[in-house]
Amino acid sequence: MSLARVHNFSISLDGFGTGEGQTIDAPFGHACHRLMEWAIATRTFRDMGMHGDTPATRGVDDAFASNWAPGIGVEIMGRNKFGPQRGPWENEDWTGWWGDNPPFHTPVVVLTHHPRPPFELEGGNAFHFVGADPVSALAQARAMAGDLDVRIGGGVQTVRQFLAADLIDHMHVVVAPIVLGRGERLWDGLEGLEDRFEIEATPSPSRVTHLTFTRR
Amino acid sequence: MSLARVHNFSISLDGFGTGEGQTIDAPFGHACHRLMEWAIATRTFRDMGMHGDTPATRGVDDAFASNWAPGIGVEIMGRNKFGPQRGPWENEDWTGWWGDNPPFHTPVVVLTHHPRPPFELEGGNAFHFVGADPVSALAQARAMAGDLDVRIGGGVQTVRQFLAADLIDHMHVVVAPIVLGRGERLWDGLEGLEDRFEIEATPSPSRVTHLTFTRR
Repeated sequence: MSLARVHNFSISLDGFGTGEGQTIDAPFGHACHRLMEWAIATRTFRDMGMHGDTPATRGVDDAFASNWAPGIGVEIMGRNKFGPQRGPWENEDWTGWWGDNPPFHTPVVVLTHHPRPPFELEGGNAFHFVGADPVSALAQARAMAGDLDVRIGGGVQTVRQFLAADLIDHMHVVVAPIVLGRGERLWDGLEGLEDRFEIEATPSPSRVTHLTFTRR
Repeated sequence: MSLARVHNFSISLDGFGTGEGQTIDAPFGHACHRLMEWAIATRTFRDMGMHGDTPATRGVDDAFASNWAPGIGVEIMGRNKFGPQRGPWENEDWTGWWGDNPPFHTPVVVLTHHPRPPFELEGGNAFHFVGADPVSALAQARAMAGDLDVRIGGGVQTVRQFLAADLIDHMHVVVAPIVLGRGERLWDGLEGLEDRFEIEATPSPSRVTHLTFTRR
């Protein structure tokens, strides 16, 4: 069965999955890189092209991070993960934050109400723009994924919408020990989520806490 | 040095320290007992008079819970922890949720703008009603506490005010794996709190996560 999975999705103690004020230089707004510090230190993220001053870690953070890719046939992402633009596309120059060879290596479905033709980058990264509700978007993604799973890649609104529609089978959330104060909250509108998931918490020496949500 | 300490303060994944709709039968509103389930199972809380169907635990939850009383000379609590009433006191019948012999066994300072004479219950539980800002209230509490520490006992607004005023030296927060959706949020207005505290996370087999905040 093809599952819908969330991986490496970081939030602050106060539940913000991104800060305020996204720009082309600050994908996470005022949160800067603070939500992803734990990830940037791992071998998995270094292999994706992230840079760091310290040796790549292979501890518990990497153990979780490395589950990101295996078994995934398609990623679904929201438009705010894809880029900082809002509203109709002014042109088609923007191809994401990830350069010529993004780390996905699968088709990517970008949710947007503003039509745009698909394009393909190196490494099997084919971007499709879809203006659909979560149920339809997941059906389209599954058709592309074959027997493989679909990753719900974020950002916050996208994960929240798929949770609200009860479409997520597995979710890995990482709580960073920071209080962001503002931005977009993951948990809004999800009262009683614990009724649908078995939740396990694992701390890391890096001071983040890994939460896994497994559908009951 | 007399410290200001917070212990056993439970919040939901989405950061609510209490639910919506406090009444005399539901001190935590729609959260009911869900935020405190981990605590009610411990030997420490059973010794305070809490009842449960299962044997009292002496694991990591109890290890944290038991730090609640030692070294404390006074508790400061907000009026919403003391009772469900709002506005001027209609009478002086209400003496808290805790019966004739509350578990504090120290003086208790209740923060309220509505004057009320002090009273004393069994076991050294002397309640004083103080209409002061956090700095003055803490000074008054310390005068009563001698060399001992002051516990900031809650509720949410009280802890948040003392954190905002940078008066807390040690804080133990327990994150329960539930999404409450509504109520009072602990972290509001505390952006950057991590700059002032060393934060450590410890998971428990009960599925809560204990967070300790130690002033840097």
